[in-house]
Amino acid sequence: MTAAPVWSVDPRTGKPREQVAVESTPGEVDQAVRAAHAARGALADRTVRAALLRAAAGLLDEAGEHVIEAADAETALGPGRLTGELGRTTYQLRTFADIVEEGAFLDVRIDHADGTLVPPRPDLRRCKVPLGVVAVYSASNFPLAFSVPGGDTASALAAGCPVVVKAHPGHPATSELCASVLRRAAARVGLPEDVVSVVHGFDAGVELVRHPLVSAAGFTGSVRGGRALFDAAAARPVPIPFHGELGSLNPVVVTEAAAAERAEEIGAGLAGSMTLGVGQFCVKPGLVLVPSGAHGDRLAKSLTEAVSETEAGVLLDHRMRDNFVAGVRERAALPDVEAPVTPGAGGEHTVGAGFLTVPAQRLAGGAHDLLLEECFGPVTVVARYRDEDEITAVLSRLPGNLTATVHLSAAEAGGTEGSGAALVAALTPLAGRVLVNGWPTGVAVAPAQHHGGPYPATTSTATSVGGTAIERWLRPVVYQGMPQALLPPELHDDNPLRLPRRIDGRPES
Amino acid sequence: MTAAPVWSVDPRTGKPREQVAVESTPGEVDQAVRAAHAARGALADRTVRAALLRAAAGLLDEAGEHVIEAADAETALGPGRLTGELGRTTYQLRTFADIVEEGAFLDVRIDHADGTLVPPRPDLRRCKVPLGVVAVYSASNFPLAFSVPGGDTASALAAGCPVVVKAHPGHPATSELCASVLRRAAARVGLPEDVVSVVHGFDAGVELVRHPLVSAAGFTGSVRGGRALFDAAAARPVPIPFHGELGSLNPVVVTEAAAAERAEEIGAGLAGSMTLGVGQFCVKPGLVLVPSGAHGDRLAKSLTEAVSETEAGVLLDHRMRDNFVAGVRERAALPDVEAPVTPGAGGEHTVGAGFLTVPAQRLAGGAHDLLLEECFGPVTVVARYRDEDEITAVLSRLPGNLTATVHLSAAEAGGTEGSGAALVAALTPLAGRVLVNGWPTGVAVAPAQHHGGPYPATTSTATSVGGTAIERWLRPVVYQGMPQALLPPELHDDNPLRLPRRIDGRPES
Repeated sequence: MTAAPVWSVDPRTGKPREQVAVESTPGEVDQAVRAAHAARGALADRTVRAALLRAAAGLLDEAGEHVIEAADAETALGPGRLTGELGRTTYQLRTFADIVEEGAFLDVRIDHADGTLVPPRPDLRRCKVPLGVVAVYSASNFPLAFSVPGGDTASALAAGCPVVVKAHPGHPATSELCASVLRRAAARVGLPEDVVSVVHGFDAGVELVRHPLVSAAGFTGSVRGGRALFDAAAARPVPIPFHGELGSLNPVVVTEAAAAERAEEIGAGLAGSMTLGVGQFCVKPGLVLVPSGAHGDRLAKSLTEAVSETEAGVLLDHRMRDNFVAGVRERAALPDVEAPVTPGAGGEHTVGAGFLTVPAQRLAGGAHDLLLEECFGPVTVVARYRDEDEITAVLSRLPGNLTATVHLSAAEAGGTEGSGAALVAALTPLAGRVLVNGWPTGVAVAPAQHHGGPYPATTSTATSVGGTAIERWLRPVVYQGMPQALLPPELHDDNPLRLPRRIDGRPES
Repeated sequence: MTAAPVWSVDPRTGKPREQVAVESTPGEVDQAVRAAHAARGALADRTVRAALLRAAAGLLDEAGEHVIEAADAETALGPGRLTGELGRTTYQLRTFADIVEEGAFLDVRIDHADGTLVPPRPDLRRCKVPLGVVAVYSASNFPLAFSVPGGDTASALAAGCPVVVKAHPGHPATSELCASVLRRAAARVGLPEDVVSVVHGFDAGVELVRHPLVSAAGFTGSVRGGRALFDAAAARPVPIPFHGELGSLNPVVVTEAAAAERAEEIGAGLAGSMTLGVGQFCVKPGLVLVPSGAHGDRLAKSLTEAVSETEAGVLLDHRMRDNFVAGVRERAALPDVEAPVTPGAGGEHTVGAGFLTVPAQRLAGGAHDLLLEECFGPVTVVARYRDEDEITAVLSRLPGNLTATVHLSAAEAGGTEGSGAALVAALTPLAGRVLVNGWPTGVAVAPAQHHGGPYPATTSTATSVGGTAIERWLRPVVYQGMPQALLPPELHDDNPLRLPRRIDGRPES
């Protein structure tokens, strides 16, 4: 049997560009995992990990032109957006280098022996250790920041875990290029290149999550693909943590008072957010609750104008284009759904942005549940509500989300008027990030960031963006009665590495 | 169809004592979960949660005599051990009250807006929120500390999550009594009683983990039962975190030099640890690697003497007694396995402690894998090794464990001689707690404790004992661009509650 070829395809034409690789065989997946596993000891030293992450960032910067060209050729995301994404990617790598060096993620806790307690307490010293080989499943829509050199890889390496990436079929050439850069960075700092490698193909992805030497997985993609891999991870003889980001509707509520105050601004802002990157962000606002009546009409008018002016764009690949066109058509055909600006096929390879409207009361019944599912691409659903009960009724039907947003008037935001606090309280159970008077697109890489949410937004309570993303690849170990001579320096009494720690239950001063 | 009766049984006689309840119907499980869910808002206030935990501890102390009597009557653990367990339970409740008040578990991180960054960073404020209703599955061997008023319940309530406990069939009367105490504590501090309730029966346990309003589960029990519930939790339309502690062998390695130095002390210590509580601890040392030769023989002699002097004991119930007797018989029948002190049936209702020996080289082949599985009760396996390669070969075949222990000589422990560091490094991947020159029985309730380990020790990387057990029942939420007026006080700039927090990536000073 001949191995299936892996082609790089130009989404602007639908034409294959070049054959990049062949799909990885089970033997090749096994080899990649074993090589990664054998390399894990080399990552034990935190200083070397920080050096690796910085070297990777530096080499990606150096190769920037080629990387952006490769990514643009097979994703059509454009050099502007991809330059920003590369900056995000290298910033992320460097930030995790800082995090590794600071060492707070080790969560060191020391309880000294206490013979006065009943029963007496032994000496206990706890820190976190890497889980082992991590499988990373790349995203279609971020060929860099959520793919081979992205946040999952950066945080796993920072944690001390070697990585095997399952490349996304939408950008195999970029994946190979980035993997070669990361492996070069490893060699440069004296690490085995096999701390990062790449496999290709659907079957290889399934092999990977089932491999006995794989200890955890990170995934960014669809509900269907992510759930299948989650199920495989849970069904293993030894189940492993599966941190998947699957799908999100990202609801937005605009209050009557906010619409009265800023209808045009909100309409234009929504148009910008939902069409950004041709609507291909996992945090695209997909359902917007807008008041019926004059202020809501003004908002809708502003939205209509801004969306109408949006240029047609190229989606990541033709399968997505087909799904978008079909998804929009199916939604638009539901009773009482209208399309003030019809989204759908543009030119031969492009799609046009648009939006649908529906009376909010319709969403309280099951017949319109399709409108509560994510539709990837430049479309959103505007649900017009008549009162707060209709808002409550719609929110009660929503699945979990990455984000939830509320637009408030100045007085509501100031807490002096209206139900701002109540709306925030109602949105918090629905999402991992709650925004006031902003738009969910744009996920800052920051220490406090949380990019995750109730299922199906993510399959765990962890984040895939921000400083705490490193926590996914670690487990605690406590040493009991261990002589100082055998303890790692992080757990020595005199704190030679000056880590932030907790001693006998309190932060060390 | 009549509901099946739930009997309290005396393990000392095998005779039913009284009918405590009937098995909960699906409707009753649904009712308990809905009532708990409705009560969750009442737990939002941290001050009230702390008061609840302290009130529960106080009322348990007051009811101590009855609680201990009830537990002893249906577990035969004896008043001495149960008095200690009650102390552990109330200490745990009070410790979580302190943890709730301190608030470090909220893991507050604030990143101020920064317009100088590219792209500009919005204001991000992150803290943790309760997951929702928690299902707790009680343990057979700790009718208090790992059951209705135990660590799972205490940590879940501390996190702000209402609890529905699936009572263990081995101590239904104790479960009902403790539930009534906890519900009384809730009422006393002005909370709905339904923040804690109890259901009975195997089917009720399955209903519980599948209930759409249950958000997480904690379990302590067998590999078979725990895995079935883990699988059910993962197979839900909306999967939930399942923190199960299933099974552990708890290997011990005794070096040649340690045996030379302390053979008699180690043999006696091992006898004490493996027979403690009639061998019914999840951290019982179940496999001990002892050198062949004269020093190891001395150790075995000392073990033989101490175990021979151990009185027969009553196991928790007759099913466990049957399993113990059959498990020992099956292991003892393997080739080259000997029983210097034969464990097995004692009197009509008791069992006698004993141990088996086997050449370590035998464990390198698959035929003796049964010896690498936990056998609940007063038995351990002593594997005699001839060199360090045989230690390595045995360790490489072990599944995950709660604990792993090494006994070293003074020079090895001081790091001046031998392979102490190498042995610690070899044991760390196998367990969540690594001990030097101690015994794993006795799991201190302490801020740094970790009671968990690679599967099947636990199904997640979390702990069920110690301060960080609270982390299991929380998820992060980040507020973006939220006006101060709408933020919870924990996230206000001026830190009115004086929480330990991280600001812009650094601990707040």
